[in-house]
Formats: sequence, structure tokens, C-alpha cells
Amino acid sequence: MIDEIIIIGTGKVAYHFAKEINNNPKLKLIQILGRSKRINSHFNEFSDIYSSNFSKLKKSKYCIIAVSDNSVKSVSINIKKFEGTVLHTSGSINMSILNTHLKFGVIYPLQTFSFDRNIDFNKIPLLVEASNNKTLNELIDFSSKLSKKTIIMNSDKRLICHLSAVFANNFTNHLIYTSEKLLKKFDIDKDLIHPLCEETILKIKSISSYDAQTGPASRNDLETIENHINFLKKNNLTFSIDIYKSITESIIKTKFDKQ
Amino acid sequence: MIDEIIIIGTGKVAYHFAKEINNNPKLKLIQILGRSKRINSHFNEFSDIYSSNFSKLKKSKYCIIAVSDNSVKSVSINIKKFEGTVLHTSGSINMSILNTHLKFGVIYPLQTFSFDRNIDFNKIPLLVEASNNKTLNELIDFSSKLSKKTIIMNSDKRLICHLSAVFANNFTNHLIYTSEKLLKKFDIDKDLIHPLCEETILKIKSISSYDAQTGPASRNDLETIENHINFLKKNNLTFSIDIYKSITESIIKTKFDKQ
Repeated sequence: MIDEIIIIGTGKVAYHFAKEINNNPKLKLIQILGRSKRINSHFNEFSDIYSSNFSKLKKSKYCIIAVSDNSVKSVSINIKKFEGTVLHTSGSINMSILNTHLKFGVIYPLQTFSFDRNIDFNKIPLLVEASNNKTLNELIDFSSKLSKKTIIMNSDKRLICHLSAVFANNFTNHLIYTSEKLLKKFDIDKDLIHPLCEETILKIKSISSYDAQTGPASRNDLETIENHINFLKKNNLTFSIDIYKSITESIIKTKFDKQ
Repeated sequence: MIDEIIIIGTGKVAYHFAKEINNNPKLKLIQILGRSKRINSHFNEFSDIYSSNFSKLKKSKYCIIAVSDNSVKSVSINIKKFEGTVLHTSGSINMSILNTHLKFGVIYPLQTFSFDRNIDFNKIPLLVEASNNKTLNELIDFSSKLSKKTIIMNSDKRLICHLSAVFANNFTNHLIYTSEKLLKKFDIDKDLIHPLCEETILKIKSISSYDAQTGPASRNDLETIENHINFLKKNNLTFSIDIYKSITESIIKTKFDKQ
């Protein structure tokens, strides 16, 4: 049986779910709802199923709310008459926010999305939970059509995964930004750092991140650390000094604790 | 003409230079010198050209000192009679440390090395400088046989590249370690985070790291930030709170400054 699905939202998560569901012969995307009267241009291919009129919400098996965290509640209230299963896609919002519905759950993709990059959905961990066992079993079936990595996880553990993702994605990205900013400030090609960034990530698949740790902090090389901090100070790169100090201290502690 | 080369050191940088030079038909590795009488097992394939006796140092065009930063000086003194060009491979040591030699320079690979991972040397940025123009031209010729990315860079700028590498590699690796540690503490499979880590890095090649920034800090979502910090506090994950705060603050500043 082909599951019919509605998506609410016109952001990056909504876009990738929409594309993936649309391309899946076992699933059918029947409607996309958003606030704007005119659809976000990234969604042009879906313009014939788009509506900004929530009173025209169709009937379907699933309605996926893929909007920003602080809008999930109001969207949920807006679709209170929906009779299918309501899902949200957030890492940090408890499932219970949807408990005004009869059947509800969460499908959280542990991945970062961009409009301009294709992603192999099959490899994305999809963390799912549902309001009851029957709904959960159905959700697992649905989720498995999208990814080989469907994992049952409750709201508390999902929050931990979300926090981990903040470190592994949001924060690493900012460090790369900081690194590039440093190079640009001194007229050095910022792309110089890219082969190093790539190898850093490839490494953790074959070596543990503990063993992969190198650099002045992991050697407790206080002279180089002091030189770096002095350099940052002298060049007024204050934005990065706190980061330098906090991570350096944590690396030293990590090495020391394990000895 | 085939350049003959000696390498001093038995660490990861020495190993990768040795392998690369050994496999290059235009270059000839004639000796490896190290402190230990018995060679590090990773170097077994080089045992016939290994010596721990520095008085048996051969004649050659280049001697590459690939040892830890704080040993470069003493190694340099140890080979004061060497008549070829002496090079070090460090990111943070000024070239002048070698100025007791007639011809000297630096060849710094902007990459992280492991014994167990092969790396495409051709793609590694090799930052070179030398004591005079003739030596520099020769060094560029030599370096170009190892990598397509040979770049002339003085000691001051090389230091900035090294500091950038600390942010882009040492620090990002520690964030991934922190992320995995968080998952492990709560019995969640740490590999869950790997597709996200990979995409984070692949992204910066097609989108700028500024545009790629997502997460609570980039949205100035103070409620989620507070929830995260409270969670870290409640679970005694103090090691990561300073990191969380410093990077979050820096991301917020970055977004704010650009507005």
C-alpha cells in the first residue's frame, strides 16, 4: 500500500523530505503547506501541490511538520483536525508537544541539509518514536522506505543526539570558518585548509577520534600554545582566544585523565 | 637528475615523506636516521637504509629533519657537517633555526598524518621557503615532484597556516571526540554521528562555511542554548561547557557582526 504524505514547511528539511518522498515509488507526496502565498523557489517542482491555505489540508496517512522549532506548536494547533499521524522532525523538541493529536510521533534526521546539495537519504540516521506501539510499527515501516538507518529513540536520547550534532556539525563548521578567517585576514588562500579538513573526517572512520588527536595541546606543548595565544592577542583576534583556550584545556584534560 | 635524500625521524611525517620519496622515480631515498637502535616497526620496509648512528650520515642533496618541534635544533647541531640543503618540516618553527647551515629551508606539509592511512601526497599543500633564491628554486623543483600544490611561504605566514590547522584539524577532531563521548555516555552508537561529520566537511567545498552555519547559536535560539547548557551541567559534563559557551558566543558574534 502506498502511504500518502503531507509536508508542512518550506525550509531545507522539508525540501529534502519532499524530494525523497516524491522520488520514492512506495510513497506519495500529496501536499506541501507553507505560510507564504508564493512558494519558495527551491520548491518550484512542487508548485502544483503547494498551498498556503491550512483549511485546505488534505487527508493522508502522515503529516510531517518540518518547520523551525519554535513554530511546531502553533502548526500543530493549526492542523488539529488532521486525522492521520502527525510527525515532527526536530532534534530537541519532546514528542509530547504533539499530544493533542490522536496519533503522533517524531522522525528526526541526524544530518545537516542544504538546498544546493544532494544527500544520500539511505545513509541518514532517522531517529523515530511514536505515541503508541501500533503507530511506531507503522512509522518504522514508513521510515525504512526512506533510510536503511531507522533507529527507535525516545525524546530524551534524541536530545542527546541533537546536542552531539551541535558539537559535531555546528561547532566544527564554526572552527573551519575561524580557520579560514585567519587565513583570509593574512591574504592566504582559504582553500589551503580543505585537504586537511577532509582527512580529519575520513580519519575518524578508521582511527578513533581519541587516537587521531594531534597538535600542541595533545602534546601539552605549552610553548607553542602560548605562542599561538600571544599571536591571536597581538592581532586582535579576540573572537577566537576563548575558543582556543577552552578546547586546548579540554584536550589536555582528556589526555591527562586517560593516562 | 635524480635528487638523493636523507630523512631524519621515525614519526608519522618522516614515514609519509619516506614512502612518497621512495615511490618516486625522480627521487632517491638513501638513508633514514633515528634515535632508536631498532627501527620503528612501521619503517620495516626501510630497515636496510636505517641507521641510528649520526656519524654515518651520508652525503646527499637534501636532509629532511622530520622530528618533533623541540628536537629540530639539536638534530640540526648533530648534522652540522652536512653539506647539502637542510630542511625542516614544522609549521611553527622559524626557518632561521637552521641558519648554522650553508643551505637550508622548510618544507611544511599542511596535512595530518597517520601510520595506517595512505594519503594522496599530490594534493597536500607543501609550504616551502629557503635561505636564498637558488636554494628556493631547487626546493620548488624538488617539492613539485611530491605535490602539485607547492606554495612559497615565509615563516610568519606559515605560522598562521599552522594555527589555522590547529583550529581546522586538532580542534575539530576534539569536538568530534566530545560528540562521540556524549553519545557513548548515554549508550548511543557513536558512529551515528559520522554521516553528519562527513557532510559537514563536504559542504564547505560547495557552500562557504559562513553560509553553512546552522544550529541554535546561528539562530540566536537562546532557549535551546540554555537547555543544552543545563543538560551538560546536570550531567556533570563540565569538560564541554566552556567549549559550548565559547563557540556559541563566537557564532552569535559572527552572525551579529555581519548583519
